[in-house]
Amino acid sequence: MAQRGFFITLEGGEGSGKSTQVPVIADFLRQRGFEVVCTREPGGTKLAEQIRSVLLTRDPDEDLCDTSELLLMYAARAQLVETLIKPSLAQGKVVLSDRFDLSTIAYQGAGRGIALETIAALRQVAIGEFAPDLTLVFDVPVAVGMARMRSRGKADRIEQAGAAFFERIRTCFRDYALSHPETVALIDATPDIATVSAAVEQVITARCLSKE
Amino acid sequence: MAQRGFFITLEGGEGSGKSTQVPVIADFLRQRGFEVVCTREPGGTKLAEQIRSVLLTRDPDEDLCDTSELLLMYAARAQLVETLIKPSLAQGKVVLSDRFDLSTIAYQGAGRGIALETIAALRQVAIGEFAPDLTLVFDVPVAVGMARMRSRGKADRIEQAGAAFFERIRTCFRDYALSHPETVALIDATPDIATVSAAVEQVITARCLSKE
Repeated sequence: MAQRGFFITLEGGEGSGKSTQVPVIADFLRQRGFEVVCTREPGGTKLAEQIRSVLLTRDPDEDLCDTSELLLMYAARAQLVETLIKPSLAQGKVVLSDRFDLSTIAYQGAGRGIALETIAALRQVAIGEFAPDLTLVFDVPVAVGMARMRSRGKADRIEQAGAAFFERIRTCFRDYALSHPETVALIDATPDIATVSAAVEQVITARCLSKE
Repeated sequence: MAQRGFFITLEGGEGSGKSTQVPVIADFLRQRGFEVVCTREPGGTKLAEQIRSVLLTRDPDEDLCDTSELLLMYAARAQLVETLIKPSLAQGKVVLSDRFDLSTIAYQGAGRGIALETIAALRQVAIGEFAPDLTLVFDVPVAVGMARMRSRGKADRIEQAGAAFFERIRTCFRDYALSHPETVALIDATPDIATVSAAVEQVITARCLSKE
């Protein structure tokens, strides 16, 4: 395959439906002749998944401090980019990642209040100037997203942080999308899966496929 | 106990005998009335030990990239400082750590060739200006240290890197000690344990105990 690979990330709050869209987008692209690699963050390689399990540990005697959480996120990201994403793109594949760097800006930055300069310093060390070709931000009202999460019975250390935390995160995702229109698309993720998929496919067709 | 706590780190190459000295120094200080907490890096808390196990994983299919290794080291350090070291010092205890930040400068910096500015940027994020009151650098010729390691049958991912790697590390430790005489002491670690202990106790007495 002579096509150049590209890197699409799916971002959004809890219950925004982005994980549901990963296989749908993968199918859409495979039908158009692309080899597609699906991954997720934090994780996506054996060692990065080990780091993920530290991030998701809840220990009654010890909280993971915010700084350590941030460093672990970037450790997992550096490993994923170096081990999976860059080699796949070099082979002409499309890489889809369920979360990437924008989640750190939203969760650790807007959510936990870590300074954006601190995040930028770690990003520079971890992945340099490497960035997605296209970021899809799946936007739903916090109440809708949280209701979806509750209906799935899902909760982890990060998801127990409360509504104000998630409002800050939603605002950050939306603001980021609106201020980076060339590389980020804001998707209304409130409708049903098929409607959201259609919107996503339209964006990918316009942004990635029309360039060939 | 009204005494102010202080933080002593033990640094040096493989087989320098620093781990052997930790309990000896702890006994010495306890006999003088101090409460002593012994720890090690990377690790020292439940979550930091989980990070350690990622660092020491050897996977036939996946190498941990140098950048990820560095980020994990600082993730573990941030967690150890926040969770164990600072609270212990605040309670007037003495903390002894088998390795700390200088090992990163030596192993990841001098050993693996990561820029010192990169290490400094991560240190700033992870622990800010926090630093040991006294660092003991245990110095042995590389051949002596490696022979000690072999006699113990010990090898891990880091220890398989070869003699030139360890010569760079030794030089870094020595140079750092000589250029920071106020806070770092270079200990000749070639003699027997009792001789090394006597030298260490003399340094601690002069640097830490005479201030009271």
